[in-house]
Amino acid sequence: MVTTTGHTVKAFDEDLSELRGLVSEMGGRAEAAIIDALAALQHRDLDSAARVVEGDRKIDELEAEIERRVVRLIALRAPMADDLRDILAALKIAAVVERMGDYAKNIAKRVPVLQDARGMEPMSVLPSMGRVTASMVRDVLDAFVTRDAQAALAVVERDREVDDFYNSLFRTLLTYMMENPHNITASTHLLFIAKNLERIGDHATNVAEMVYFAATGQTMAERTKGEDPLAGDAK
Amino acid sequence: MVTTTGHTVKAFDEDLSELRGLVSEMGGRAEAAIIDALAALQHRDLDSAARVVEGDRKIDELEAEIERRVVRLIALRAPMADDLRDILAALKIAAVVERMGDYAKNIAKRVPVLQDARGMEPMSVLPSMGRVTASMVRDVLDAFVTRDAQAALAVVERDREVDDFYNSLFRTLLTYMMENPHNITASTHLLFIAKNLERIGDHATNVAEMVYFAATGQTMAERTKGEDPLAGDAK
Repeated sequence: MVTTTGHTVKAFDEDLSELRGLVSEMGGRAEAAIIDALAALQHRDLDSAARVVEGDRKIDELEAEIERRVVRLIALRAPMADDLRDILAALKIAAVVERMGDYAKNIAKRVPVLQDARGMEPMSVLPSMGRVTASMVRDVLDAFVTRDAQAALAVVERDREVDDFYNSLFRTLLTYMMENPHNITASTHLLFIAKNLERIGDHATNVAEMVYFAATGQTMAERTKGEDPLAGDAK
Repeated sequence: MVTTTGHTVKAFDEDLSELRGLVSEMGGRAEAAIIDALAALQHRDLDSAARVVEGDRKIDELEAEIERRVVRLIALRAPMADDLRDILAALKIAAVVERMGDYAKNIAKRVPVLQDARGMEPMSVLPSMGRVTASMVRDVLDAFVTRDAQAALAVVERDREVDDFYNSLFRTLLTYMMENPHNITASTHLLFIAKNLERIGDHATNVAEMVYFAATGQTMAERTKGEDPLAGDAK
């Protein structure tokens, strides 16, 4: 039931603000998981990698909590269309962040099988790629909380940097594989790690589009967004 | 506003049934895209591959249409918690199917760069893997429409078959790479195609869990679900 009494509106705003806070917390955890997984890879730190894998459970729990709150919020407050879109955006974004957490977990799971890959150049490039990707995750969730369309646009721009990292790593890893068959297994794992980061960047771009739409009511101009950078793969 | 007059309940049921129909249509298109992308790969059919890429737009449009209907349905009918969960499940499943469509599109995009890979064994295994994966997509959406928890469970079981395909292809492709550096680029693309199918299988498993939960109110017993089969990767 919709009422326009100050009390109910205030309670609704508080609920919505709490919901945004939970999505933001999920994002913070996904961001940390990305950074920690790549640090674990770089320092061959199995304990730290295991903590990232374990920590993904908390991200999943937060998603379930967000879903419960969305159901409660809609059922109790019967929000109008605009507010409803906002609430459903939170639900959708939470689902995307959950997948980001899965990608970070997948990176962490590859740490034990990459104990011997220490001399390979991508091992030192991946953390830089991870930092850019993690910053996209942080900034797009900040943009969601503050409803900042310009900040969302800036995140989309940064996805090109992630794609460039990916294309460069792809070529480097192919060279490693060709030079020495013994590098092939490790290179393949590193390639999947790079691909996971590239996908996280795509997901951040998708979230940026939702934030942009929620804030402006307009879709971002058609752009080469969220696409798998095949140009590099095809080289 | 909730009323219990027959008229309103009937209209709501019709709306819900139409919503399920749209999700099912999305699933049918994703299923066809998977099959068609792999047929295009096998027969080096660039036109057919281009049609899969183009057809993904329709899947995206269906997702947008589902979202509009969800907002309208909730705003107009103010459904109670159980119905609301059902409607939100449709929204979440549509988002997953949209990603499945993206994976199929990604496979189709690799067809042009795999024109010379015709003699490789995975080229003939991938369509079989694709058929199993596509059947999971079809069956889990049928289970959603009919609210069939047992059918959803059966889909989860079949994900093991997809993982077995993936692990076997992973090893085969590594062998190809090691035998001849000239195979490395094509093998990498084929590896990504296998990985895309494996991810679609994971997504179908996730949808199966939502269907199971919606139908029974219980979560599926903790199982090794939706995980990247690292055992094979690590070989």
